[in-house]
Amino acid sequence: MRVLGIDPGLVATGYGVVESERGDLRHIASGTITIPASRPLSARLRMLYDSLGEICSRYDPAEVAVENTFLAKNVAVALKLGQARGIALLVAELAQLPISEYAPTEIKIAVTGFGGAAKEQVQLMVGRLLRLSVETTTHHATDALAAAICHLHSGPWRRIVARPREVASRTL
Amino acid sequence: MRVLGIDPGLVATGYGVVESERGDLRHIASGTITIPASRPLSARLRMLYDSLGEICSRYDPAEVAVENTFLAKNVAVALKLGQARGIALLVAELAQLPISEYAPTEIKIAVTGFGGAAKEQVQLMVGRLLRLSVETTTHHATDALAAAICHLHSGPWRRIVARPREVASRTL
Repeated sequence: MRVLGIDPGLVATGYGVVESERGDLRHIASGTITIPASRPLSARLRMLYDSLGEICSRYDPAEVAVENTFLAKNVAVALKLGQARGIALLVAELAQLPISEYAPTEIKIAVTGFGGAAKEQVQLMVGRLLRLSVETTTHHATDALAAAICHLHSGPWRRIVARPREVASRTL
Repeated sequence: MRVLGIDPGLVATGYGVVESERGDLRHIASGTITIPASRPLSARLRMLYDSLGEICSRYDPAEVAVENTFLAKNVAVALKLGQARGIALLVAELAQLPISEYAPTEIKIAVTGFGGAAKEQVQLMVGRLLRLSVETTTHHATDALAAAICHLHSGPWRRIVARPREVASRTL
């Protein structure tokens, strides 16, 4: 199964496509969508919408995993983050892809075995699991790859047990 | 000029279309897009996207005014509000409509002359300005109509003086 992981942000959104075949993980693509802060907000949201749509078309994932952070410094930051996340979820929904959301702690546990892991540990483990050199990926891309890995490890169980409603309504 | 006002929210989004002809304001349409909280978040965002897109097609506004609130109880509420606002801005951008954002205080001043006006005062004044009976509109629809009125009163000045960058990039 091919999974697109997304780490949404208004300035930088990480994406990472990972494929799992008989338990073996393979890196397909990853990167950071960087949006100039100088553009009006609506234009920035459209750039994110266009870029994520293009990534969905190009890599044709079967499912999407989104990092679901509730940690924001303040209300203004949360509003901005919410706008970017809303676009990411919309793009996946329009592409009719099942979406799973994971908290940063869940992603860290899935990748490093420890929920309090530092960014560098996550980067190191993602690099090892996907046989990538650490230097080639940004933190945003690494976080997106980690979300995809987390989904491939824990996704099927979560979706069947914890979210029957979501799966049901997405298959309409 | 015909303006679509939007008061975005994840559970209820108000919309209001107002036309100004030689200084005379006319109510074209208004209402509330209500989205069932039981559906998965991505499906709710898509319902909002579809509904606002349909409203843009049906009423063909020349510009859009969005209530730009930075007041949210906490980070979790701000994230939800941000998601809905992101969708509203994206729909307007995809329809290539110029967007202006107004703070709740600006909207209250434009409609009632007083930035600390209560919801009931705003509703009363919107009703008078548009010759509507107060009972026919919800608070969300009234807030959206008030945003449209605010834009028709103060829009041209704001766009020319305060936001040359935004106008320039939107005409691309």
